[in-house]
Amino acid sequence: MHAHDTNWSVTGVRVVLANPNSTVAITEACASLARAAAAPGTDVVPWTNREGPPVVDGLASDYLAGAALVRGLAELDRRPDAIVLAGFGNYGTGAVKAALDIPVLNMAEAAMACAVPLCHRFAIVTTSPRMIPYTEDVVAAFGFAGRCAAVRAVSLPPVDAPPAPEDAIVEQLAAEADQAHATVGADLVIMGGARLSPYAAALRQRTRLVVVEPVACGIAMAEALARIGLRQSKLGKFARPPAERDSA
Amino acid sequence: MHAHDTNWSVTGVRVVLANPNSTVAITEACASLARAAAAPGTDVVPWTNREGPPVVDGLASDYLAGAALVRGLAELDRRPDAIVLAGFGNYGTGAVKAALDIPVLNMAEAAMACAVPLCHRFAIVTTSPRMIPYTEDVVAAFGFAGRCAAVRAVSLPPVDAPPAPEDAIVEQLAAEADQAHATVGADLVIMGGARLSPYAAALRQRTRLVVVEPVACGIAMAEALARIGLRQSKLGKFARPPAERDSA
Amino acid sequence: MHAHDTNWSVTGVRVVLANPNSTVAITEACASLARAAAAPGTDVVPWTNREGPPVVDGLASDYLAGAALVRGLAELDRRPDAIVLAGFGNYGTGAVKAALDIPVLNMAEAAMACAVPLCHRFAIVTTSPRMIPYTEDVVAAFGFAGRCAAVRAVSLPPVDAPPAPEDAIVEQLAAEADQAHATVGADLVIMGGARLSPYAAALRQRTRLVVVEPVACGIAMAEALARIGLRQSKLGKFARPPAERDSA
Amino acid sequence: MHAHDTNWSVTGVRVVLANPNSTVAITEACASLARAAAAPGTDVVPWTNREGPPVVDGLASDYLAGAALVRGLAELDRRPDAIVLAGFGNYGTGAVKAALDIPVLNMAEAAMACAVPLCHRFAIVTTSPRMIPYTEDVVAAFGFAGRCAAVRAVSLPPVDAPPAPEDAIVEQLAAEADQAHATVGADLVIMGGARLSPYAAALRQRTRLVVVEPVACGIAMAEALARIGLRQSKLGKFARPPAERDSA
Amino acid sequence: MHAHDTNWSVTGVRVVLANPNSTVAITEACASLARAAAAPGTDVVPWTNREGPPVVDGLASDYLAGAALVRGLAELDRRPDAIVLAGFGNYGTGAVKAALDIPVLNMAEAAMACAVPLCHRFAIVTTSPRMIPYTEDVVAAFGFAGRCAAVRAVSLPPVDAPPAPEDAIVEQLAAEADQAHATVGADLVIMGGARLSPYAAALRQRTRLVVVEPVACGIAMAEALARIGLRQSKLGKFARPPAERDSA
Amino acid sequence: MHAHDTNWSVTGVRVVLANPNSTVAITEACASLARAAAAPGTDVVPWTNREGPPVVDGLASDYLAGAALVRGLAELDRRPDAIVLAGFGNYGTGAVKAALDIPVLNMAEAAMACAVPLCHRFAIVTTSPRMIPYTEDVVAAFGFAGRCAAVRAVSLPPVDAPPAPEDAIVEQLAAEADQAHATVGADLVIMGGARLSPYAAALRQRTRLVVVEPVACGIAMAEALARIGLRQSKLGKFARPPAERDSA
Repeated sequence: MHAHDTNWSVTGVRVVLANPNSTVAITEACASLARAAAAPGTDVVPWTNREGPPVVDGLASDYLAGAALVRGLAELDRRPDAIVLAGFGNYGTGAVKAALDIPVLNMAEAAMACAVPLCHRFAIVTTSPRMIPYTEDVVAAFGFAGRCAAVRAVSLPPVDAPPAPEDAIVEQLAAEADQAHATVGADLVIMGGARLSPYAAALRQRTRLVVVEPVACGIAMAEALARIGLRQSKLGKFARPPAERDSA
Repeated sequence: MHAHDTNWSVTGVRVVLANPNSTVAITEACASLARAAAAPGTDVVPWTNREGPPVVDGLASDYLAGAALVRGLAELDRRPDAIVLAGFGNYGTGAVKAALDIPVLNMAEAAMACAVPLCHRFAIVTTSPRMIPYTEDVVAAFGFAGRCAAVRAVSLPPVDAPPAPEDAIVEQLAAEADQAHATVGADLVIMGGARLSPYAAALRQRTRLVVVEPVACGIAMAEALARIGLRQSKLGKFARPPAERDSA
Repeated sequence: MHAHDTNWSVTGVRVVLANPNSTVAITEACASLARAAAAPGTDVVPWTNREGPPVVDGLASDYLAGAALVRGLAELDRRPDAIVLAGFGNYGTGAVKAALDIPVLNMAEAAMACAVPLCHRFAIVTTSPRMIPYTEDVVAAFGFAGRCAAVRAVSLPPVDAPPAPEDAIVEQLAAEADQAHATVGADLVIMGGARLSPYAAALRQRTRLVVVEPVACGIAMAEALARIGLRQSKLGKFARPPAERDSA
Repeated sequence: MHAHDTNWSVTGVRVVLANPNSTVAITEACASLARAAAAPGTDVVPWTNREGPPVVDGLASDYLAGAALVRGLAELDRRPDAIVLAGFGNYGTGAVKAALDIPVLNMAEAAMACAVPLCHRFAIVTTSPRMIPYTEDVVAAFGFAGRCAAVRAVSLPPVDAPPAPEDAIVEQLAAEADQAHATVGADLVIMGGARLSPYAAALRQRTRLVVVEPVACGIAMAEALARIGLRQSKLGKFARPPAERDSA
Repeated sequence: MHAHDTNWSVTGVRVVLANPNSTVAITEACASLARAAAAPGTDVVPWTNREGPPVVDGLASDYLAGAALVRGLAELDRRPDAIVLAGFGNYGTGAVKAALDIPVLNMAEAAMACAVPLCHRFAIVTTSPRMIPYTEDVVAAFGFAGRCAAVRAVSLPPVDAPPAPEDAIVEQLAAEADQAHATVGADLVIMGGARLSPYAAALRQRTRLVVVEPVACGIAMAEALARIGLRQSKLGKFARPPAERDSA
Repeated sequence: MHAHDTNWSVTGVRVVLANPNSTVAITEACASLARAAAAPGTDVVPWTNREGPPVVDGLASDYLAGAALVRGLAELDRRPDAIVLAGFGNYGTGAVKAALDIPVLNMAEAAMACAVPLCHRFAIVTTSPRMIPYTEDVVAAFGFAGRCAAVRAVSLPPVDAPPAPEDAIVEQLAAEADQAHATVGADLVIMGGARLSPYAAALRQRTRLVVVEPVACGIAMAEALARIGLRQSKLGKFARPPAERDSA
C-alpha cells in the first residue's frame, strides 16, 4: 500500500460536528465521543451554534437553533467533506441539507438508520418527559415511525444545573430501556439526546438491549457517505431555491 | 362602536393575520381576503414578518421565517384573541404555538381541517413544481396525509417578477384541479400558497371541484376557536420549556 | 357600522341542529350548548329525529337512525344555511351529505377537525365501554385515526334511567382524560357523546387537558363554512345518484 | 332431522342469500351463482330486501337499504345457519352482524378475504365511475385497504334500462383489469357489484388476472364458517346493546 | 347420500395437509383437527416435512423448513386439489405458492382471513414469548397487521419435553385472551401455533372471545377455494421464474 | 503499511461479502465494487453460496438460497468482523442474523438506510418486471415502504445469456430513474439487483437523481457498525432458539 501515501486513509475525511445549541460543554462531550468512534485519519472539527439557544428543549428553541444553524454553517470558511448535526432533534436539518452541497447528516437519523437493520423495533429514551412529543414528531419527520416502538424519558437536571450522579442517570436509562422491552417489545434503545450520549458505555453494562449512541452513528455514517460519494439529492426538497441558484 | 356594547359582532374578536414572509404586498392581499371572509365585528390586524425572508420557498427560508416569526409575534404589543399564520407552509407554526398562550392557527391546517368533512379526498395546488415535496411534508406534519390525494403545482413567476396574467394562472389552476380529479379522484382542491389565494373566486368559475381558499378558512376557524374558548394544549408539544415558565 | 344593516350579522345564519335520535331531552340539551356557542345572529333550529331510535348505542341503531335522518332532513320545509348533526357517531352522515346540497357537518368530525391543530394527540371519552369499538370506527371513517391516541369510556346510566350525579360523572371523565395523558400522551380530550357534552365546563375545572365539546365545534364550524361559502363536494362520494338528479 | 344425525352433507347448511336492494332480478341472478358455487347439500335461500331501495348506488341508498335489511333479517321466520349479504357495499353489514347471533358475511368482505392469500395486490372493478369513492370507503371499512391496489369502473346502464350486450361489458371489464395490472401491479381482480358477478366466467376467458366473483366467495366462506362453528364476536362492536339483551 | 353418488360430496376434494416441520406427532394432531373440520368427502392427506427441522421456532428454522418444503411439495406424486400449510408461520409459504399451480393456503393466513369479518380486532396467542416478534412479522407479511391488536404468548414446554397438563395450558391461553380483550379491545383470539390448536375446544369453555383454530380455517377455506376454482395468481409474485417455465 | 501497526486502518475490519446465489461471476463483480468502496485496511472476503441457486429470481429460489446461506455462513472457518449479504432481496437475511452473533447486513437494507437521509423519496430499479412485486415485499419487510416511491424495472437478459451492451442497460436505467422522478417525485434511485450495481457509475452520468449502489453502502455501513461495536439485537426476532443456545 506504499503507493497510496496520499490516499484517503492518510488525508482522511474532514467532518464538521455541529452542535445545534450554543453550549460548548455539550459540543466538547460530543466531539470526544465522535473522535472515539471515528476512523483513523478522520478529522473531527467541532462547531458550536453560538447564535443558537443554549439548549433545544422544544419547538421554539428548535426554530431558533435551526435558523442560526443554517446561517452559521453556510459561512464555514473551509468546506468539509461532511457535516454531522449533533443534536437529537430536527432544528432545521432539512434546511441545512437544502442550503449546502456537501453531505449533511443528523445524528438522530443516522442512529435510526443504523438501528433498523439491527432490531425488531427500537425505543428512544429522551432527556425529559416534556421532550417525548417533540421527539415523536422528529421520528416521524425523519421517516422512521414504523419501527419506533416507544419514546420514553429520564429526567435530566436542567442544562445549567449541577449534573446528576452518573449512576442515577444510568439506572434510569436502564429502567426505561427494560420497560420498553417488557411493554412494547423493543430490543434496541437509542440515546435520544446529546446529553445522554456519554452514558452509553455504562448503560451497555446494565441492559441486554442493544444500545445505540447517535454521535458514533453520525460520524461513522458520515464517513461512509463521504467515502462512497453520496450526498443529499438536489432534485427534491433539498434543492436550492431559484434565487440562490441564480446568485450562486 | 359604543352603540353596540352588548353585541358580540361589534366587540368581535381581534385576529392578527401574520404573513410569515417580509413581502408587504402579500400581507395586503391576504388581509383583503381575510376581511372579506371575517364575521362582522372581527378586527383583522395584518402583520408582516419583516425580519423574515421575502418568500418562503423551501426548507432554508422556512426556518429563517420561523425563527423571525417566533421572535416577532412574542413581542406583539397588544394581545389579540387569535393569530392566523397566513402562509401555506410550516415555518415554525408549532414553535409559535409553543411560545404563545392564545390560539394560533396556520392557514394550511385550517384549510385541511375544513376540507376533510367536505370531500372524499383533497388535492393541493402549490406555486411551483419545486414546492411539491416541501408541501407534501407540510401535509404530513399537520396530520392530514391520509386524506390528501395529491400535491400538484402551477408555475408562478418569481415573487419579484411582473405577475402573470390572471387568466393564464386560473387556467393552470383549473387544469391541475381537473387532473387531480381525473387521476386520483380528488373532489376538492386547496389553494396551496398565499400568492394563489386571490385566484380562488375565479377558479370556482372554472372547475367543478370545491375550491378551498386557506385565508378564509384560517380567519373563520380562528374566530370559531376564539369564540368557543379553545386554544392549543399546553400539556404536550406546545408546552413552554421550563426556563420560560420560570421567567414568565 | 350602520351601513351594514342588512348584512350577515343581522340576518345571521340559520343552522339546523339535528339530533340523530328521538330523545327530545337530548335535543334540548344540545340546543342549549349550541346557542351558547353560536355567534350573535345565528339562528339555531333544534330538530329531533323522531322516526329514529331513542339512542344510537351501536351499529344497528346507527343504521336505523341514519335512514330516518336522511328521510327526515330531506323534508325540511325551510332550507337552512347549514346542518349540524348533533350525535357523536356516524349514523348516515355521508348519506345526509349526499342527499343535500347545503353544508352538513357531523359534530364528531367538527370536534376532531378543531382538535387536530390544537394538540399533539387527542383522546375521546365515550359514554360506555361498549361504545369504544363503535367510536374507534367512527374516528377512522372520518379520517382522524392518525391523531386519535385512545378512545376511553365512562359508564353513564341508560338514557331512560335517572341521571347519575354530575360530580360522579365529571370525576370519571377527569380520570379517563388524565389516564389518556399518562398512558398515551394525549393532551386534549373530546367529549365523545351528546350526553357528555353538558359536563364539558365542569370537566375543564378538573383536568389540565384541553377539553373539546363537539356541539360548540359543530355550530362554530358550520357558521364558518356557511359564511365562507363552502359545502361538501358533489364530485365524489357525496354526489347524488343519477336517478335523483334526473327527478330533482 | 333425526334421520340425519351423523351426516353433515345431507342436512347441509341453510344459507340465506340476502340481496340488500329490492330488485328481484338481481336476487335471482345471485341465487343462481350461489347455487352453482355451493357445496352439495347446502340450501341457498334467496331473500330480497323488499323495503329497501331498488339499487344501492351511493351513500343515501346505502343507509336506506341497511335499515330495511336489519329490520327484515331480524324477522326471518326460520333461523338459517348463516347469512350472506349479496351486494358489493356496506349497507349496514355491521348492523346486521350486531343484530343477529348467526354468522353474517358480506360478499365483498368474503371476496377480499379470499383474495388476500391469492395475490400480491387486488383491484376491484365497480359498476360506474360514480361508485369508485363509495367502494374505496367500503374496502377501508372492511379492513382491506392495504392490499387493494385500485378501484376502477366500467359503465353499466341503469338498473331499469335494457342491459348492455354481454360482450361489451366483458370487454370493458377485461380492459379495466388489464389496466390495473399494467398501472398498479394488480394480479387479481374482484367483480365489485352484484350486477357484474354474472360476467365472471366470461371475463376469465379474457384476462390473465385471477377473477374473484364475490357471490361464490360469500357462499363458500359462509359454509366454511358455519361448518367449523364460527360467527361474529359478540364482545366488540357486534355486541347487542343492553336494552336488546334485556328484552331478548 | 345415495342420491348424490356422482356429485362433489362423494368424489370430494383431496387436500394435502403439510406440516412444515419434521415432527410426525404434530402432523397427526393437525390431521385429526383437519378431519373433524373437513366437509364429508374431503380427503385429508397428512404430509410431514421430513427434511425440515423438528420445529419452526425462529427465523433460521423458518428458512430451513421452507426450503425443504418447496422441494418436498414439488415432488408429490399425486396432484391434490389444494395444499394447506399447517404451521403458524411463514416458512416459505410464498415460495410454495410460486412453485405450484394448485391452491396453496397457509393456515395462519386462513385464520386471519376468517377472523377479519368476525371481529373488531383479533389477538394471536403464540407458543412462547420468544415467538412474538416472529409472529408479528408473519402477520404483517400476510397483510393483516391493521386488524391484529396484539400478539401475546403462553409458555409451552419444548417440543421434545413432556407436555404440560392441558388445564394449565388452557388456563394460560384464557388469561392471555382475556388480557388482550381488557388491554387492547380484542374480541377474537387466534391460536398462534399448531401445538396450541388442540386446546381450542377447551379454550372456548373458558373465554368469551371467539376462538379461531387455524387448522379448521385452513381446511375449510382450502375446500372453498378448490370448489369455486380459485388459486394463487401467477401474474404477480407467485409467478414461476422464466427458467422453470421453459423447462416445465 | 508497517508504519501504521497500531492503527485501525491497518488492522482494519474483515468483512465477508456473501453472494446469496451460486454464480461466481456475480460474486466477483460485487467484490470488485466492494473493494473500491471499502476503507483502506478493510479486508473484503468474497464468499459464494455454492449450495444455493444460480440466481435469486423469485420466492422459491429466495428460500432455497436462504437455507443454504444460513448453513454455509454458520460454518465459516474464520469469524469475520461483519457479513454483508450481497443480493438485493430477502433470502433469509433475518435467519442469518438470528444464526450468528456478528453484525450481518443485507445490502438492500444498507442502501435504503443510506438513502433515507439523502432524499425526499427513493425509487428502486430492479432487473426485470417480474421482480417488481418480490422487491416491493422486500422493501416492506425491511421497514422502508414509507419512503419508497416506486419499484420499477429494466429487462436484463437471463443470467446465463450473453450480457446486453452496457449502453443499452444504462439507457434503460436512466429512463426508469427519470420516469420515477417525473411520475412520483423520486429524487434518488437505488440499483435494485447485484447485476445492476456495476452500471452505477455510468448511470450517474445520465441522470440527475442521486444514484445509490448497494454493495458500496453495504460495505461502508458494515465497516461503520463493526467499528462502533454494533450488531443485531439478540433480544428480539434475531435471538437464537433455546436448543441452539443450550447446545452452543
